[in-house]
Amino acid sequence: MPRRAHSDRSSIAETIAIGSELLVGGRSDSNSLFLTEALGRLGIEVRFKSIVGDDRSDIVKVLETAVQRASVVVLTGGLGPTIDDCTREAVAEATGRRLRRRKEALDGMTARLAQWGRVPNRGQLRQALIPSGAAVLPNPVGSAPGFSLLWKGATLISLPGVPREMEAIMQTTVTPLLAAQLESNNARQNPIVRMAFHTWGLPEADVDAKLQGLIPRHAPVDLGLLASPMGVLVSLTTQAHRPVGEAVLTTLAEGVRTRLREWLFAEGRDTMEEVVGRLLTKQGLTVAIAESCTGGLIGHRLTQVPGSSAYVDRGAICYSNRAKTDMLGVPAELITKHGAVSQEVAAAMARGIRERAGVSVGLSVTGIAGPGGATNAKPVGLVYVGLDAGPGDAVSKEFRFHGDRSVIKQRSSQAVLDLLRRWLIGKGGT
Amino acid sequence: MPRRAHSDRSSIAETIAIGSELLVGGRSDSNSLFLTEALGRLGIEVRFKSIVGDDRSDIVKVLETAVQRASVVVLTGGLGPTIDDCTREAVAEATGRRLRRRKEALDGMTARLAQWGRVPNRGQLRQALIPSGAAVLPNPVGSAPGFSLLWKGATLISLPGVPREMEAIMQTTVTPLLAAQLESNNARQNPIVRMAFHTWGLPEADVDAKLQGLIPRHAPVDLGLLASPMGVLVSLTTQAHRPVGEAVLTTLAEGVRTRLREWLFAEGRDTMEEVVGRLLTKQGLTVAIAESCTGGLIGHRLTQVPGSSAYVDRGAICYSNRAKTDMLGVPAELITKHGAVSQEVAAAMARGIRERAGVSVGLSVTGIAGPGGATNAKPVGLVYVGLDAGPGDAVSKEFRFHGDRSVIKQRSSQAVLDLLRRWLIGKGGT
Repeated sequence: MPRRAHSDRSSIAETIAIGSELLVGGRSDSNSLFLTEALGRLGIEVRFKSIVGDDRSDIVKVLETAVQRASVVVLTGGLGPTIDDCTREAVAEATGRRLRRRKEALDGMTARLAQWGRVPNRGQLRQALIPSGAAVLPNPVGSAPGFSLLWKGATLISLPGVPREMEAIMQTTVTPLLAAQLESNNARQNPIVRMAFHTWGLPEADVDAKLQGLIPRHAPVDLGLLASPMGVLVSLTTQAHRPVGEAVLTTLAEGVRTRLREWLFAEGRDTMEEVVGRLLTKQGLTVAIAESCTGGLIGHRLTQVPGSSAYVDRGAICYSNRAKTDMLGVPAELITKHGAVSQEVAAAMARGIRERAGVSVGLSVTGIAGPGGATNAKPVGLVYVGLDAGPGDAVSKEFRFHGDRSVIKQRSSQAVLDLLRRWLIGKGGT
Repeated sequence: MPRRAHSDRSSIAETIAIGSELLVGGRSDSNSLFLTEALGRLGIEVRFKSIVGDDRSDIVKVLETAVQRASVVVLTGGLGPTIDDCTREAVAEATGRRLRRRKEALDGMTARLAQWGRVPNRGQLRQALIPSGAAVLPNPVGSAPGFSLLWKGATLISLPGVPREMEAIMQTTVTPLLAAQLESNNARQNPIVRMAFHTWGLPEADVDAKLQGLIPRHAPVDLGLLASPMGVLVSLTTQAHRPVGEAVLTTLAEGVRTRLREWLFAEGRDTMEEVVGRLLTKQGLTVAIAESCTGGLIGHRLTQVPGSSAYVDRGAICYSNRAKTDMLGVPAELITKHGAVSQEVAAAMARGIRERAGVSVGLSVTGIAGPGGATNAKPVGLVYVGLDAGPGDAVSKEFRFHGDRSVIKQRSSQAVLDLLRRWLIGKGGT
């Protein structure tokens, strides 16, 4: 992304996730997407993210840095009842305030625990300790309240790490508070708009080439590309300090759609499984799946969507050859002749599951996920997918994927769901 | 975790992940687990993690902070060929060095591209630009080399963001370089040992209670707990600046095992599906799965393990009632009488899949994943799991889970795999 002009820290935010287990990594910080979006709607841009353990002096260091570069600092975590949780103490130390047990914090917690027939224990009483001068942020769904205070010209907000509690406090208290603050400072910002476009089937370099020259030089919109086993994500993001007309954004988005055409399978937070689910529902169709190398992943993905029981009838995970014959009626001779990983078997699997389930459309995948099972003729990553909607309406495709077992399973599931999506659109769906 | 004595920055590391898309969040920073472990083996503790966009002046700010609090700073990302990638420029600016095209960087890249019959394009030529005085770190698996330099007494290491490339450079060059540096400074540290214990079936508070008093006060070992839908993770982590005898660690680990007993299903990087896979292999048994509300997740998890085709025969995803009858022979009257979500149907599903597949053991899950489908008598989260290994050797259990659709699917899959694990251990497995 191009660099932007910025000389002060106004409308810049930093998030600080606190917890020693977060340092070990490998875990996604699910809070930060929510915070980035919620602050972005106020025109506040998250430009820095920090992660630090449950260590008081380390948290103090991170806080001191954050207030130098951001005007809004949101801490998550470290407000629990155990001795590890030291965010309260760290904020008090950094800002030179004392911790005091606050009536409004204690009352909320006591009332909540009373509902469950309990009284606060010693650890929970610690959760009512708040740095002096801070505003208590009530927690409508849990025991630990958050708090906010002004320090060195920055607004410092401390929230629980539990996503549900963090989100509730953000929505009920923090967002209105920040909006009022921006208003009274006459510092209202343009909301940061981020549009996401999900593509499948084109390498990142080809997506890049197709989008060349889309965004006029110096336009206040950033274009982002991110490749993953599930495809290439394209994003358009506006900048808080420069207003962007709605017409400009609409034109750019239309440009992305025109250039990426059928490779674009979803926008925003939509997923492939939600898109095909909506298309199936609209067309009143049902589906069944025959999976070999994906081992159930396609069924799992389709059934992540609430209400999917209306169009997913069944799936057959046919890991053994005998299962392909038993469950789908794939002739044993066909498997012997072409091998279980072949276009012929993929086609027979899709037809077999459609006929046995009595659904509108059958899907199939057979392939070599590796690391074992490859031969010279059939390498790891060779995958066949099939779709069968009745005589004369069937298609199967060959793919050669790269990656480890898990990546090949993911790419295979995406390939077959995209085959279904294209078929549904070809039938007139949108 | 208890706070530790520390007054200087030696043996403290910071990782900095660079990329505007990382700021949007929701994505796990998969590099950081690898870096934390690799540095930990050298006795270098990652105590700070930062994430920043592709913005030169923001990267400079983050670098300036990092060298004040860490002696080893590892940057990942921003070394690609596009104009967005500005890590090289930011490091040059922060450290007051010039970027120069370096022969050793160019030669490696040219040779690699030549293998694919290509020559470097303009963007790739930029990847040979290295800050003056920096050591080039060859990239054995990609085109962008890394580099390292000393600045303000800290070692600054810049690596590509692609996990495979980052890992390869860490292993071939960075780890030996840091080890030699520690050696020559007489600053060799104790390796940081982290032991992980995975439990299922106990709430976090109960795990905490069972582990009370395990670790003697002031022992140089930290105990960590982390709850997720997959169970509670317990960790023991040693501290780099205080040696821990192997006997002490062995005793503590034994203490964790004794106290957590059958709730402990795996250690280290092991997963539930690997554990049951090994038990099945050792006992020469095969398995088939009948899934309703999990929709294929159990099959997906079991088949994530390389070699699982030796013991996974098949799975039936029976989303509709008819599928339960067709694929598993569950009597329609049984479903009418008790409902599809019932202990009776779970038992019949497990027996049905075992008999039809001709495997040693059949597993089943039926439940209400929500948000729809609940009744007063059968709320969202009500789940039955079953196991059938033949007449007189069957078990089924009821669970009432909390959480959204995705969480209930995860917990259900964990519950049925744990049922299998306990049954396999009961047969004398370890």
